[in-house]
Amino acid sequence: MADYVHGYDEQERRRLSDQAATLAELLHADTCFAASSSVLEAGCGTGAQTLIVAQQNPGATFTAVDISAASLGVAQEACQRAGIRNVTFQQADLLAINFAPASFDHVVVCFVLEHLPEPDRVLHVLKGLLRPGGSITVIEGDHGSTLMHPDSVLARRVIQCQVALQARAGGDAHIGRRLFPLLAGAGFSRDQISVSPRMVYVDGSKPDWIEGFTRNTFTAMIRGVREKAVAAGLITAAEFDQGIEELLRTAEADGVFGYTFFKAVARA
Amino acid sequence: MADYVHGYDEQERRRLSDQAATLAELLHADTCFAASSSVLEAGCGTGAQTLIVAQQNPGATFTAVDISAASLGVAQEACQRAGIRNVTFQQADLLAINFAPASFDHVVVCFVLEHLPEPDRVLHVLKGLLRPGGSITVIEGDHGSTLMHPDSVLARRVIQCQVALQARAGGDAHIGRRLFPLLAGAGFSRDQISVSPRMVYVDGSKPDWIEGFTRNTFTAMIRGVREKAVAAGLITAAEFDQGIEELLRTAEADGVFGYTFFKAVARA
Repeated sequence: MADYVHGYDEQERRRLSDQAATLAELLHADTCFAASSSVLEAGCGTGAQTLIVAQQNPGATFTAVDISAASLGVAQEACQRAGIRNVTFQQADLLAINFAPASFDHVVVCFVLEHLPEPDRVLHVLKGLLRPGGSITVIEGDHGSTLMHPDSVLARRVIQCQVALQARAGGDAHIGRRLFPLLAGAGFSRDQISVSPRMVYVDGSKPDWIEGFTRNTFTAMIRGVREKAVAAGLITAAEFDQGIEELLRTAEADGVFGYTFFKAVARA
Repeated sequence: MADYVHGYDEQERRRLSDQAATLAELLHADTCFAASSSVLEAGCGTGAQTLIVAQQNPGATFTAVDISAASLGVAQEACQRAGIRNVTFQQADLLAINFAPASFDHVVVCFVLEHLPEPDRVLHVLKGLLRPGGSITVIEGDHGSTLMHPDSVLARRVIQCQVALQARAGGDAHIGRRLFPLLAGAGFSRDQISVSPRMVYVDGSKPDWIEGFTRNTFTAMIRGVREKAVAAGLITAAEFDQGIEELLRTAEADGVFGYTFFKAVARA
């Protein structure tokens, strides 16, 4: 597994939780599973998506796995606090996952493949865990989809720092656009794969999204790589800070910010 | 008015018509006007959008204006061939337009502002033509939204040629993201402006969109600036051709292409 580029500290945890709340409707309004179906969440992290899909599908039974015991602990605690009882947690490496073939009706993978050096292999493994007629749901972002007004060369450079660091760690911050070929490559029939882009579009008429997404999700995430980016010699600290300021310029009343997530559903 | 960068020859006319057919549903499914309302189409060009909105709103009366008599002739002929009787055509410069204030219930502007050096002034003029309670609908693309898989530096360079030529002619190929601030700047209330991005997402499961959009709309449009781009010294002919080939690579079975249009509706 690649190093997880986003880090695990408290601020980061809050960021992931903010992101989940703001985006839940856009990404998960149609993440619906029949009652009594069994769902594997592969790479649940600190449980941001787990909370959403488990609460939204109270009749389904979830198994949430992650490679990090620390993250699993946080996720489990969050579920307990929220009174969620339909999730069990289990530590596992997705490439060495220990379930019998065809163990699940559905698999959910959110913001995970972007970090993996071999997303195709992981999808192939997950496909093997699906019952015939089951489905896999994959959601990923794509930093190349970022749109800004005013546009800024320096803001694009700080975003590029995150892209470069993620690539060095074996990931791909532009993976959203690749979901169709990745799923096809993992063996899903091309006519059983459906990808829908979900664009977060934020202008001056949407103060909640300005706060919840432009500032506290996207910019906070990019700001989170400041030390690593400077240490790696990708940018100077002064340039980085200026780039963040120009990124935040898009959160002013006459600014615009756009970012596209990709949601793919493939049937086994 | 800026030079119109796309040109007016027969091939170009076919391209615009292909584009209109493929995109009509995505862009215009919700372009609906009450029967007996009067609608101004500002900058109708050769009538690609005119045909769609006039046929879709048979009870409304359209006045379609353009600065080019040649384009108006083509548009008029196309309407006659299609048996459309609710459109009258008129030659006009949008900045010197000759209608009384509050002459129209609605105004439609599609793929026009991108070519204008002063889109804000034009929107201000058009606002003055609207009756209270009327609306303006603006649709524009944004070349900065282009997503490709496989990604290609050279393909992005040929797209950038079109962006640069359009900028030299006084236009802005990235104008889509600016619709909200442009409309707010033209005097529309910020809480009466609604912008919705419309992403064309094309993968190997969508052969019609591969043909109709990736190949025959977007790539054809970019290919159309080859001579001008080479003459302007922006790129060599060999590089340009290679860039087009790499752009077409996204139209293969495992390729992905994305492009976002922005549709804004503002109420007067």
